[in-house]
Amino acid sequence: MKKKIAILGASGYTGAELVRLIATHPGFEIAALTGERKAGQPMAAVFPFLRHMDLPDLVRIDEVDFAAIDLAFCALPHATSQTVIKDLPRDLRIIDLSADFRLRAPAAYEKWYGKPHAAPEIQREAVYGLTEFYREEISTARLVAGTGCNAAAGQYALRPLIAAGVVDLDDIILDLKCGVSGAGRALKENLLHAELSEGTQPYAVGGTHRHLGEFDQEFSLIAGREVQVQFTPHLLPMNRGILATAWLKGDARQIHAVLSQAYCAESFLQVLPFGTVPSTHDVRGSNFVHIGVVGDRRPGRAMVVAALDNLTKGSSGQALQNANLMMGFDEGMGLMAPPVFP
Amino acid sequence: MKKKIAILGASGYTGAELVRLIATHPGFEIAALTGERKAGQPMAAVFPFLRHMDLPDLVRIDEVDFAAIDLAFCALPHATSQTVIKDLPRDLRIIDLSADFRLRAPAAYEKWYGKPHAAPEIQREAVYGLTEFYREEISTARLVAGTGCNAAAGQYALRPLIAAGVVDLDDIILDLKCGVSGAGRALKENLLHAELSEGTQPYAVGGTHRHLGEFDQEFSLIAGREVQVQFTPHLLPMNRGILATAWLKGDARQIHAVLSQAYCAESFLQVLPFGTVPSTHDVRGSNFVHIGVVGDRRPGRAMVVAALDNLTKGSSGQALQNANLMMGFDEGMGLMAPPVFP
Amino acid sequence: MKKKIAILGASGYTGAELVRLIATHPGFEIAALTGERKAGQPMAAVFPFLRHMDLPDLVRIDEVDFAAIDLAFCALPHATSQTVIKDLPRDLRIIDLSADFRLRAPAAYEKWYGKPHAAPEIQREAVYGLTEFYREEISTARLVAGTGCNAAAGQYALRPLIAAGVVDLDDIILDLKCGVSGAGRALKENLLHAELSEGTQPYAVGGTHRHLGEFDQEFSLIAGREVQVQFTPHLLPMNRGILATAWLKGDARQIHAVLSQAYCAESFLQVLPFGTVPSTHDVRGSNFVHIGVVGDRRPGRAMVVAALDNLTKGSSGQALQNANLMMGFDEGMGLMAPPVFP
Amino acid sequence: MKKKIAILGASGYTGAELVRLIATHPGFEIAALTGERKAGQPMAAVFPFLRHMDLPDLVRIDEVDFAAIDLAFCALPHATSQTVIKDLPRDLRIIDLSADFRLRAPAAYEKWYGKPHAAPEIQREAVYGLTEFYREEISTARLVAGTGCNAAAGQYALRPLIAAGVVDLDDIILDLKCGVSGAGRALKENLLHAELSEGTQPYAVGGTHRHLGEFDQEFSLIAGREVQVQFTPHLLPMNRGILATAWLKGDARQIHAVLSQAYCAESFLQVLPFGTVPSTHDVRGSNFVHIGVVGDRRPGRAMVVAALDNLTKGSSGQALQNANLMMGFDEGMGLMAPPVFP
Repeated sequence: MKKKIAILGASGYTGAELVRLIATHPGFEIAALTGERKAGQPMAAVFPFLRHMDLPDLVRIDEVDFAAIDLAFCALPHATSQTVIKDLPRDLRIIDLSADFRLRAPAAYEKWYGKPHAAPEIQREAVYGLTEFYREEISTARLVAGTGCNAAAGQYALRPLIAAGVVDLDDIILDLKCGVSGAGRALKENLLHAELSEGTQPYAVGGTHRHLGEFDQEFSLIAGREVQVQFTPHLLPMNRGILATAWLKGDARQIHAVLSQAYCAESFLQVLPFGTVPSTHDVRGSNFVHIGVVGDRRPGRAMVVAALDNLTKGSSGQALQNANLMMGFDEGMGLMAPPVFP
Repeated sequence: MKKKIAILGASGYTGAELVRLIATHPGFEIAALTGERKAGQPMAAVFPFLRHMDLPDLVRIDEVDFAAIDLAFCALPHATSQTVIKDLPRDLRIIDLSADFRLRAPAAYEKWYGKPHAAPEIQREAVYGLTEFYREEISTARLVAGTGCNAAAGQYALRPLIAAGVVDLDDIILDLKCGVSGAGRALKENLLHAELSEGTQPYAVGGTHRHLGEFDQEFSLIAGREVQVQFTPHLLPMNRGILATAWLKGDARQIHAVLSQAYCAESFLQVLPFGTVPSTHDVRGSNFVHIGVVGDRRPGRAMVVAALDNLTKGSSGQALQNANLMMGFDEGMGLMAPPVFP
Repeated sequence: MKKKIAILGASGYTGAELVRLIATHPGFEIAALTGERKAGQPMAAVFPFLRHMDLPDLVRIDEVDFAAIDLAFCALPHATSQTVIKDLPRDLRIIDLSADFRLRAPAAYEKWYGKPHAAPEIQREAVYGLTEFYREEISTARLVAGTGCNAAAGQYALRPLIAAGVVDLDDIILDLKCGVSGAGRALKENLLHAELSEGTQPYAVGGTHRHLGEFDQEFSLIAGREVQVQFTPHLLPMNRGILATAWLKGDARQIHAVLSQAYCAESFLQVLPFGTVPSTHDVRGSNFVHIGVVGDRRPGRAMVVAALDNLTKGSSGQALQNANLMMGFDEGMGLMAPPVFP
Repeated sequence: MKKKIAILGASGYTGAELVRLIATHPGFEIAALTGERKAGQPMAAVFPFLRHMDLPDLVRIDEVDFAAIDLAFCALPHATSQTVIKDLPRDLRIIDLSADFRLRAPAAYEKWYGKPHAAPEIQREAVYGLTEFYREEISTARLVAGTGCNAAAGQYALRPLIAAGVVDLDDIILDLKCGVSGAGRALKENLLHAELSEGTQPYAVGGTHRHLGEFDQEFSLIAGREVQVQFTPHLLPMNRGILATAWLKGDARQIHAVLSQAYCAESFLQVLPFGTVPSTHDVRGSNFVHIGVVGDRRPGRAMVVAALDNLTKGSSGQALQNANLMMGFDEGMGLMAPPVFP
């Protein structure tokens, strides 16, 4: 029998992406979709691309019968998520796609998000959702915290290298190129087509992007010492995709060997032949990550480049992969569709 | 047991789209991929987005053992296709995605393509591949001729209206807005990003576009008299998608009723509520067609707008839908994935 | 001595485009820029691309000393414009870029804009700003009403044809392809990059677009009888540009001759050789209009295609051209810069 | 009297950009345009956006009467340029936009371009064309070698910092985001719209990009020691623009002070307020460079970001600025038009 799921916050891009992916998943059935401001509307009115599907109308969260739900995806805005999850049944299994439960330490949360956490006791229980590195914990978790999309891209490029000690931990630079859907369906001037197409600029400069909190937490944990990377994202005229260019000090061949070894058994993590670089075009709409390693003319310098789709592997695809683990399904179920190119 | 298929001409966009769709199809197995100029290369070198798949390397057509093939998709260039198919085993079932077998009359072929057909005897045997209107013939056909992508878009908007006699047959205007992948992976100056992005222009003007041959053939057949539409496509800065705007004389409500009735049982053809118009965004990467009907302030004038993805429903998705029929599978198998938005 | 100008509503795209064009104009000096919500800010904060210019800060309209102003451009939102202009000095020469003074008849205004005009006495005095057809009136006008951008594109394609009686007046179809800047710097979901890029759809369907009021007014005046065209715009993933495809009944060669004759002395209106069609790429950022005429395989059918930049010739460039006339400058002064390609 | 100029290689993007800029330049007159393969054609056939201009037809180089030419712009492909210039009159003043004369040392040329220089004696005489740093030499030069567009972007960000010794010379990383017109009007698969739009990837990885030869030459000269930066460009879905993100070790405030001081008298080089970053949107189509400096949460780390238009300041605008110097005109003549936004 299919597992019944609810998607809270189904009127945003990550919520819609979950519906898209679950549409062809044999093990899940969408039992409830919520959207506070759009409650009462059919999903086809909010996302006409889902018109052909037989979906429940959007309702308010308090209208959902959670007793009939096996798993809830929470695709609500940051800060809202923690106040909603606090009041959900304590035995409901939840995958949260917001930033609210990614940082384990209350102080870290407060530092990066500017106020105390509203549900610190739940915060402690959350498992960090980077599937390939937290499989065991995720499969038994009650609450999984989906990672930041930039945080996912950077970690796929770097975690095995930090663990293996093959790069200089004090000199990691992450220059990210990001598609606009990562900012959500938000009415902001800088997200307008007229402001964005045919040009690029950095944002969240100066070491202020909140995904740094995730990098700090995870990389320091792996290294057993404090690691602080330099990271600045750039907004690109493309809807989907993150290209993470990591500038590193280390031996490029060794780096390639470590990544190849670490990911050789992973379905979704594809390490390219040495010297080959990925393109976001080649992962669009899919759960795959392409990772390339190149050296430099100067020995001891290397570049690792990782490409993923922020809405899929960086968010909703990752969430579904985790849901598969939590429900005992094959981890890749419903996620093997190739990218859409061109 | 899975049916074994070959894709001839797998190094182009429609070939790659076939691979993408078949990747999650439970009934087909890709047994051979050909590409004359790229023979010997792995598919991942030609289309890195397919890197994660376990695919046969590209070979030359003469290297394929067609005895082991249940069905061949022929995604070769126009004119090449007829010379290749002529020499394939006469009992091999084939779906041709080129323009070579769309026109039944040798004279019509010669008129629109500028030279006599190289395989007129096979031309006669081909079934026109617009699935919803040729289901029976397709299911038993040996050779199915996939339609032009523009021709598909226009016909979905118009066939039921012509059959029902609810529009003025002498005054049908089709103004199409077309994505660039319809032109294939061709090295032409006007297909460069720098020439194409951020602007638009008409092409194949003056009643010269070859898909007019298909419109003439089909619409005249339905109407039982000669019908010649006016049709001009415009090239838009988008990779996928065709928006067909049909300017018609007829009663808009009646037109809507006829289309709704005609397509009410069709999985892939979605008629929108009266007065609502479709967007190519909402069908991208999928096999769905969205069709809208609006009236005008002047009574007796109407606009029908159809949106589809040229590579999917306009070409490779249509081909797979036909393959399902030919192999006795459920018609929608492997084709129900929602569009990719945004 | 330079003429002193004020730009009211300089925080929108048409206001900024005026600044861009005037930057290299030898006869005008920008004396005041207004923006109610952004009053007090330097222009560089609102439009960083103007950073290198020495411009006055934005102020509120009531802070402008209009006694020192020779000409005011009014780039305010529709409806706001009429209430502001009503209270400006009655001897101030004004070019309004909004829709407020385009329709001469109060009833027509009320019909298309849904409420009575707030300044009907001024409405009567306004001259319609389509330069090439209202030169004399514009040069002596106190108040010039800039045309709608779509209205300009359609009229350049059609006015001489209607005047010459060479097309069927009851069967004019205008299928427009429009860039997104025509919608202004507005925070609307459908203007987001993620919603707009890589796709297209019609809008303002069913004969509801307000620029129809201008077409009705002007074409009926020219024809000496009521003329109602069918017109629907489509939103394209491009920032600038309108391509107006006019589907006509008439002799294509005759149509070409009439347009060539009508525009042979016009600097900005370029009629292409017969059978050649324009591209919005080729007018981007400029005041030029490219117009092409093609026949059809069916005699008596023709297509006229006009391309212009909505922000330049469709709005701010037109306004500057009119300002040149009003101030006694050469009409093309500051407007001869070629388009920006690619 | 106007100076007569010739543009050799006017059928490419940099040649067309020269025509665009010179169109409104009061001191220059275009006397000859060449294009070997397109000789005999009017410029309007090759670049319809220049249709309104009264330009000479394209001719072959050997048809040009160089005795009547005051200055020749050479916008020919790399390698071709040196063989052509070798045979031009030795007293003709030339600005070369190719890569052929950028490197002074024959060994450096051979290293980066893979074969010996065909005109080493002329190579020695060429002056490097980065205007703000070679003004004196340029004004009296016979042959000026325009810089690489990426090389220009990187040098504007870095030269004053290297000269002042305020950054670690052994740890300079340049991560560039580049528009596609930098690759020219070349028929390459990776430049097609379908391959390029909506995604990004690095290219010329591993310290292999030829503009590194320019960086090495110039930075080592300034520093008085060998300096080798790490530099990798990324191809973005935009036609114009380069965003150079320089990752540096140094004090961000000091870096900002040095750049502000160095460029305070420069018309085209705009240093933004500390902590503000530029966008390529804000320089498109113009000769301006916007430069921003930000610190990092880690002291002693900084990011300098420079934005310019590769076709204008990175190539043809730079060439015109140098031409102004060579002909004794005001350096900014014809170059003060603001960027085109949006």
